[in-house]
Amino acid sequence: MNPVFQYRGGMLFCEDVELQSVAEREGTPCYVYSAAGIRNAYLQYAEGLAGIPHHICYAVKANGNLGVLRHLATLGAGFDIVSGGELYRVLQAGGDPAKVVFSGVGKTREEVEYALEQGIHSFNCESEGEIALISALARRLNKTAAIAIRVNPDVDASTHPYISTGLKEHKFGIDIAEVAAVYETAAALPGLSVQGVSCHIGSQLLDPAPVLEAAQRLLGLIDTLRANGINITDLDLGGGLGVPYQPHESAPDVPGFLARLKQLISGRNLTLFLEPGRSLVASSGALLSRVLYRKQSGQKHFIIVDASMTELIRPALYEAHHEILPLRESKLGTVVADVVGPVCESSDFLATGREVANVMPGDMIAAMTCGAYGFAMASNYNARLRPSEVLVDGATWKQVRRRETLEDLIRGEQNEQNGTA
Amino acid sequence: MNPVFQYRGGMLFCEDVELQSVAEREGTPCYVYSAAGIRNAYLQYAEGLAGIPHHICYAVKANGNLGVLRHLATLGAGFDIVSGGELYRVLQAGGDPAKVVFSGVGKTREEVEYALEQGIHSFNCESEGEIALISALARRLNKTAAIAIRVNPDVDASTHPYISTGLKEHKFGIDIAEVAAVYETAAALPGLSVQGVSCHIGSQLLDPAPVLEAAQRLLGLIDTLRANGINITDLDLGGGLGVPYQPHESAPDVPGFLARLKQLISGRNLTLFLEPGRSLVASSGALLSRVLYRKQSGQKHFIIVDASMTELIRPALYEAHHEILPLRESKLGTVVADVVGPVCESSDFLATGREVANVMPGDMIAAMTCGAYGFAMASNYNARLRPSEVLVDGATWKQVRRRETLEDLIRGEQNEQNGTA
Repeated sequence: MNPVFQYRGGMLFCEDVELQSVAEREGTPCYVYSAAGIRNAYLQYAEGLAGIPHHICYAVKANGNLGVLRHLATLGAGFDIVSGGELYRVLQAGGDPAKVVFSGVGKTREEVEYALEQGIHSFNCESEGEIALISALARRLNKTAAIAIRVNPDVDASTHPYISTGLKEHKFGIDIAEVAAVYETAAALPGLSVQGVSCHIGSQLLDPAPVLEAAQRLLGLIDTLRANGINITDLDLGGGLGVPYQPHESAPDVPGFLARLKQLISGRNLTLFLEPGRSLVASSGALLSRVLYRKQSGQKHFIIVDASMTELIRPALYEAHHEILPLRESKLGTVVADVVGPVCESSDFLATGREVANVMPGDMIAAMTCGAYGFAMASNYNARLRPSEVLVDGATWKQVRRRETLEDLIRGEQNEQNGTA
Repeated sequence: MNPVFQYRGGMLFCEDVELQSVAEREGTPCYVYSAAGIRNAYLQYAEGLAGIPHHICYAVKANGNLGVLRHLATLGAGFDIVSGGELYRVLQAGGDPAKVVFSGVGKTREEVEYALEQGIHSFNCESEGEIALISALARRLNKTAAIAIRVNPDVDASTHPYISTGLKEHKFGIDIAEVAAVYETAAALPGLSVQGVSCHIGSQLLDPAPVLEAAQRLLGLIDTLRANGINITDLDLGGGLGVPYQPHESAPDVPGFLARLKQLISGRNLTLFLEPGRSLVASSGALLSRVLYRKQSGQKHFIIVDASMTELIRPALYEAHHEILPLRESKLGTVVADVVGPVCESSDFLATGREVANVMPGDMIAAMTCGAYGFAMASNYNARLRPSEVLVDGATWKQVRRRETLEDLIRGEQNEQNGTA
């Protein structure tokens, strides 16, 4: 568990804030993020890369809350975006567009234009069609678009089984064996500055070795491209480092990984881009919830809480594990139970068959390690209101997104427009 | 395919509206629903149950758009809700609260109070704790709360393998073997009118036989309860009938099912409640999308479209199948491809390894049978804007929800509130 979360006198704290009082005042369900936890994680990257040209581009998709983005922008972060909406978020949070890279396989014409107008650093391109579109739009807007091409480095999945499938099977990137020709074509197009090589090989990696292996392959590619007159200045290795979700898991050795990376690229005249998302924010977030009911069916116990798959879909979608902790340590021991939400789906659970504190209706719990891909994937399924979000900093906390209202649910449905000619 | 969707002269129509023109004028992605399709599905239930006391309570969770709810309310539907937000939607759409039943395992105090104040028909209760809470709140508000108890009828899953797991494993309902005692307790509580028996045994049933089996068990229970002096007047069999998603699947025989049901309950002095959701709306909806890029990796083809798991999560979450049709029939034959969206996840796909029309960038497609659990489960993941929704009726169509804006994304995040004392 991230040390920013600790029990003191039987109560769970985030930094110096008692979470029970946050839950009572803010209501539940509610996301809580630790500014110190995020700062510590960011500084681990920043200090590890000190001395070489680099940008740490936080992957906004993990958690795009404006309070979180503002915090990271203040620390000096750049941003990895995957949509026009994420660029808008970054700009609203005071992020610097010159430190933004735009990833993703499905950039629309409108999104590319918006990014060009705002002056982002570069596009991570995923297909020849996209490169042609960016060239055409840049020319029309009288701009030069800096691009990297996302390469599929074909890191051997058999030696790294957590990279789940043959990478050629995925929609992302261009095969490293075929990409040199794509670079040649791109270099000949107007409106483009072909200056980067990028990759992103997976997610939730607890061992960074495959990223280092990918880096070596990309460095070989860069040598080839430079020999062919394409002046590559940027190496973007994406994100993907994981966090421990379960007690037996260990965090990756980020300082060791960065030290190896620095060795690899030193003297290569490259600016290094990393796109950490989960590893910057996941361990610094918790989802607070209230126990509504206890229920028993045969020998099976259910703890019904007011958070559900609409706030946190990771257990249903990825069979993800999140530790469940009581905000006030229980005097009633533990119970093996399913912790489930109010949504009318069998897949609506936070934990199944888990030994957890024997909490009773009215007690508060936290689902831990929810700072990434939590609120970001929330929905209004079952017409549930999306929860509020709170940012803790030291002994203070503030709401960084208010809870939705009933009016929010139906916004946009009331003034029907007749579309018929 | 629902006959409200048909090709005419090579163009896909919904009723008498050409979908290509809707996609062009409304933009993509965009959900389209057929009023006639929903009407036909509703009338099949209404006509099948004519002559016996009944309420057809549409399960709002399948598709809660106000235009859809208003349409169903006008046809005479009641509503099955699972949250205060769904009750709010029903009321905003002009639905009659006296025809509303409130299901779900996690009703909060605030939701129960809201439902009591609005005068809903009854609560389908899922636990003893919930029954006690409703009793206490009804008393405090000087109301009588009508309740049914949701029974787990333990229909033999081995004879009906599509009911996937042993039902005692689920969080829903109370075991039929144990429920008589719960009825006794409830009947003795103040503020309650214990008048119903309810169940809901599964979802996407293409064979209604297990529902009939459950009905027989519930009728046996009702006999027992009545013999013990508990005057049951309502039998609620829930929903769960499916729709054909794939060409080889057949719709359940709804008229035959309803005829059997009428036989079963005739002369029993019961009002029958059904809670169809998917079977009323799924086949009447389509998700329109534009092809952004084509891409090939080795022998593998990708069709990258502007709809994703944020609009339609069913393929990622349930491995659901949705037919993919071109809005304009292709002259280029077919291709075996993955149809994928712009979201940065391997799980973001509409179809994998599917033979589909050989559509090119700029072409429009429809994912079919998306009227249920489509928009209802949509998210803003990757900071994507939720799509607009359109209701077609004959030769006319109207927007029933506008596309979200960038401003919508950050609503509630701008005025930070300091929560510290």
